Amino acid sequence: MDERVREHAEVLVDWSARVDPGEHVVVSVAEDAHDLGVAVAEALGERGATVTTLYGSDEVSRAYLKGAEAGAEGGTPDFDEDSAVDLAIFEAADVYLRLGGGRNTAATADVDRETRQAYTRARKGVREARMDTDWVSTVHPTRSLAQQAGMAHEEYEDFVYDAILRDWEALAEEMAHMKEVLDDGDEVRIVTERADAPDTDLRMSIAGRTAVNSAASVAYDSHNLPSGEVFTAPYDAEGEVLFDVPMTIESTRVRNVRLVFEGGEVVDFAAEAGEDALASVLETDPGASRLGELGIGMNRGIDRFTDSILFDEKMGDTVHLALGRAYDACLPDGESGNESAVHVDMISDVSAESTMSVDGEVVQRDGTFRWEDGFEG
Amino acid sequence: MDERVREHAEVLVDWSARVDPGEHVVVSVAEDAHDLGVAVAEALGERGATVTTLYGSDEVSRAYLKGAEAGAEGGTPDFDEDSAVDLAIFEAADVYLRLGGGRNTAATADVDRETRQAYTRARKGVREARMDTDWVSTVHPTRSLAQQAGMAHEEYEDFVYDAILRDWEALAEEMAHMKEVLDDGDEVRIVTERADAPDTDLRMSIAGRTAVNSAASVAYDSHNLPSGEVFTAPYDAEGEVLFDVPMTIESTRVRNVRLVFEGGEVVDFAAEAGEDALASVLETDPGASRLGELGIGMNRGIDRFTDSILFDEKMGDTVHLALGRAYDACLPDGESGNESAVHVDMISDVSAESTMSVDGEVVQRDGTFRWEDGFEG
Repeated sequence: MDERVREHAEVLVDWSARVDPGEHVVVSVAEDAHDLGVAVAEALGERGATVTTLYGSDEVSRAYLKGAEAGAEGGTPDFDEDSAVDLAIFEAADVYLRLGGGRNTAATADVDRETRQAYTRARKGVREARMDTDWVSTVHPTRSLAQQAGMAHEEYEDFVYDAILRDWEALAEEMAHMKEVLDDGDEVRIVTERADAPDTDLRMSIAGRTAVNSAASVAYDSHNLPSGEVFTAPYDAEGEVLFDVPMTIESTRVRNVRLVFEGGEVVDFAAEAGEDALASVLETDPGASRLGELGIGMNRGIDRFTDSILFDEKMGDTVHLALGRAYDACLPDGESGNESAVHVDMISDVSAESTMSVDGEVVQRDGTFRWEDGFEG
Repeated sequence: MDERVREHAEVLVDWSARVDPGEHVVVSVAEDAHDLGVAVAEALGERGATVTTLYGSDEVSRAYLKGAEAGAEGGTPDFDEDSAVDLAIFEAADVYLRLGGGRNTAATADVDRETRQAYTRARKGVREARMDTDWVSTVHPTRSLAQQAGMAHEEYEDFVYDAILRDWEALAEEMAHMKEVLDDGDEVRIVTERADAPDTDLRMSIAGRTAVNSAASVAYDSHNLPSGEVFTAPYDAEGEVLFDVPMTIESTRVRNVRLVFEGGEVVDFAAEAGEDALASVLETDPGASRLGELGIGMNRGIDRFTDSILFDEKMGDTVHLALGRAYDACLPDGESGNESAVHVDMISDVSAESTMSVDGEVVQRDGTFRWEDGFEG
């Protein structure tokens, strides 16, 4: 086994999930994430945790949903509300580790949107119980993900481990600057002015919200490995935004998404590709038309877009917004933010002709932050 | 996908587990049982059940146990009693389907016996909760199992599907004869007299016990697919028995096991190969030295030994005994039989120079039953 697989497992268990002896850990192993599953199980055994392994197979999920469609004989399947077993799992678990890495990123492409939405809606309680654990999502560098990224397998392995096996403590210190600016601010404005694309000019309120220094550890309210972003929960968005980084939503390739916000809500939308998938997201529930997240990518170890949100949204010189659910960590105690069954991130490249301002003061220009060398105020 | 995989899934879900709409089904998918997992998920979706998939990987189990050994620094690991997550899963589940078929039947060979025993002991409650579900164990015909059987992969697929895709209703009727004899009987005696092997002469009481017509369905208290045996829970065994069918116990090849019983308990044992593995089983707990099962193989669709207990013990012309736990279905209501953390089956070929008698009357001679053509009384 590649020694980096073991290092990945150790970062995940110790830095990210902070697993203690006696904790109950649920590990979901995707179809081709077996080697990482083995390394994680070994680390958990050594630390005296218990482990339960789920099989996180997209092909199994697809088969179940297609079977349900067949059973519904043309109608939309009626799914059991919050399967008792799945609910019991996450209510009993202390930690949930999701090891992504299937065999085909388009494995569920032929499942009806209505079926998918009905299934997502029926599992709200399961999702909430899962998010109440110390959960962390990561991926094993599989051939399928390499293909999605347009990279050779070994090249992709290097890319993934470069992004994951980092000095997380140092990055956390650096990201603390950005968190401070967002915590102190009331309004964020993002502007891009390019010859080759429509303008972005979006304002949103962040007053009273707390930014998360997402340093790939539950100790920082951060649940992705890799991470390297600072995010908060905006509201009352007004204006237009273009997401020019291509991505895959619901197994559909989506490019150049344009959203128009009024009073915090999407009132118009378009996409050069994948507009149906976007429409499907927006239709899920009322919260799917409102923002749940503003994130600023700060992981300069990620050097290219790979059509994987886990990596793309963390890349330096990008900002992203998510439609749907807001994370509790960004909200005042006891206050609920935007609620939705979905959380769909979309990304803008801000490396050129771009500014992000907080309360009228420029924080990032053309990708360079105020506290970095070369910043032009 | 081979159409027989779908047929296997349908027999499992409909005939074996009798899954009803709304039931909560937990499916454990072994490393190479993916295709069967997909077919089972589709069938469950169609029938309106919920599904939770566990990853039943021996390599993950081994890694966890080896990690625990490393954490114990030379001592025997101290495992958490009945992991809360695993207990919650089986307490919430209505049905448990185990799809075997890993990549290496010796995957856990280098785990210390003490570690294994400690882990088994710590999971008694989980095991009991699992056995309280409508559980069924089956296998997908993997290359690893083909190798274990000494067969080519396609040849092995034919073997497995011939054993599984049967007229179970017809076999159930045939096996009802044997059940009647055992239910009415008080004592079973098995005798073999061969030139090339030590004699078997074993008597055991079955008074008050109920035999199970194991027709591969929970409706018959039968939990294996394939099945095709009639079994009961004997006690007070006296005498000697030779198990001449080779098998694998705890990843160890075991051959020609000889057990001597006095007062129901093993007082002496030997094996031509794998004696240590046998000793390890016997040491697990007091119940491991007593019988939990007498089974009579009646599936004549299984035409050879393949070093897999799931198939070997069902083969016609064999009887088997298990050390350890007795099945509740064989016991009077509220009465407990032999209790143990283990249940280890061992098989004798009774095709020649052999008789099985119940209350002094011969029921099977040289493999032929009293009600079959060619029986010599």
